[in-house]
Amino acid sequence: MKTYLDCIPCFYKQALVAARKSGAGMAEQKEILDRVARIIPEFPLSKPPVEMARHIYGMIRERTGVEDPYRKEKEKSNRMAMDIYPELKSRVESSADPLLNAAELAIAGNIIDYVSKDALDLEGELSRIISTEKESIERESSRDFDYRGFREQLGRSGTILYLADNAGETVFDRVLIEEMKSMGEEKEIIYAVKERPIINDAVMEDALFCGLDKAARVISSGSDVPGTVLDFCSDEFLEIFREADLIISKGQGNFEALSGVSAPVYYLFLVKCPVIADEAGCDLGDVILRR
Amino acid sequence: MKTYLDCIPCFYKQALVAARKSGAGMAEQKEILDRVARIIPEFPLSKPPVEMARHIYGMIRERTGVEDPYRKEKEKSNRMAMDIYPELKSRVESSADPLLNAAELAIAGNIIDYVSKDALDLEGELSRIISTEKESIERESSRDFDYRGFREQLGRSGTILYLADNAGETVFDRVLIEEMKSMGEEKEIIYAVKERPIINDAVMEDALFCGLDKAARVISSGSDVPGTVLDFCSDEFLEIFREADLIISKGQGNFEALSGVSAPVYYLFLVKCPVIADEAGCDLGDVILRR
Repeated sequence: MKTYLDCIPCFYKQALVAARKSGAGMAEQKEILDRVARIIPEFPLSKPPVEMARHIYGMIRERTGVEDPYRKEKEKSNRMAMDIYPELKSRVESSADPLLNAAELAIAGNIIDYVSKDALDLEGELSRIISTEKESIERESSRDFDYRGFREQLGRSGTILYLADNAGETVFDRVLIEEMKSMGEEKEIIYAVKERPIINDAVMEDALFCGLDKAARVISSGSDVPGTVLDFCSDEFLEIFREADLIISKGQGNFEALSGVSAPVYYLFLVKCPVIADEAGCDLGDVILRR
Repeated sequence: MKTYLDCIPCFYKQALVAARKSGAGMAEQKEILDRVARIIPEFPLSKPPVEMARHIYGMIRERTGVEDPYRKEKEKSNRMAMDIYPELKSRVESSADPLLNAAELAIAGNIIDYVSKDALDLEGELSRIISTEKESIERESSRDFDYRGFREQLGRSGTILYLADNAGETVFDRVLIEEMKSMGEEKEIIYAVKERPIINDAVMEDALFCGLDKAARVISSGSDVPGTVLDFCSDEFLEIFREADLIISKGQGNFEALSGVSAPVYYLFLVKCPVIADEAGCDLGDVILRR
């Protein structure tokens, strides 16, 4: 997906937030915004927004010397999500269609950045997002939620590459992966996180904390773009990407990065940005599961 | 009020909206954003945001050759508000405290930029904002809504300068001005609009369309800053400003421009921006009437 002009004001906003999270003072925050003002005009809009984001966050890291400004937030998300892991598991196991329920949960886990206080809030949010049985049926008939196609493709696939999005959300991914594995057949599932901290994206540390290694082979994409832009990925990752029978792409960043790529990708995400809503032809807040 | 770093992303957003309203194509929109990226780093944050806004909108006007991109919108707002003028009048006249009701309406009229469809929508929005009798009493005891002080100051004032904000909202100002004049005493009320089109701010044409000349002496501030920054105003205006017993300042832009100035100003506005909410120590959506 290309970068839209509407992404530009958002880059400045993100830069300001990241500068503050990195502990920059007022003058340094201003200097960072001035640097963004020099970077953006040079950036080709033909590239996806996540590439510009990588550039901006990298500049802020260099300027402030803070490698991982979202560390604390990520740890909190991980803990919050791990706290409700047993609850998630029993919810899935007791549902009429555990795979559907786990897929919905995995998408809903995408909301974790917005939940601030505690696990209780998170559960509340999830109840709001997860469909009732009736809604599930409606969803299944929408073109944005192709659960039947996903299930069929999954049934046919031996090697599955699962592209992680945020820390904390990883726990929800684990629940879906465990459900996929319980489908009986021998499946190899590879879970790919980012190589280096970028925003609140999961890195190896987050995946291990959330026990993803108990459910899948955890690898790094080799990149610190907050979305899987293939040009930035390692050769090892690219080999797996090319050979996978099914690629599960979580979150908006991965959608941005891969939406033009020809590969057996199913996108699972919550639409949180108006530009992505336009690009994907859906509405803010929509729950997406589609090729 | 100074410019906050949080205003910076918003300037880009506003520039993009204005470029589009001016009919700029994609390449021209991009060029405008690139120009903004050159202007903003040079702008001293000690000045109020409305000064930067004037600079940006001026650049877009020069670049696109479109003098008044908000013209149609302003005309629509004027017509919508004039359509409900009789209704506003009868509402005020039948209320327990007509001056209070008119003041609340004048503040609520500030919502007009957000109302898109028709006069019916506008009436709905107003009903939502205008207080019930009970709410009025609560409001009177809040430090942000000093109606008693306003009424007393009004009673003592012979010359009143009323600083307009948006087109359409002018009709609501007219209702308040007519109520002020019906207080019996001989009052001279001067209504000041912007000299040249800037965003959706009212200019002479809007004031005349809405019949403000029937209620007040209509003048121009001599400036095209979307807020009354005194350095940019005409000598004629400044003389009136200095001699007025009471200055009624409508909208956020005028608050930004005057919040550091020593003068007998009452601010009437709806808090629509988080930065202004911080500066004024109140919440988004608050209804403000205070010195």
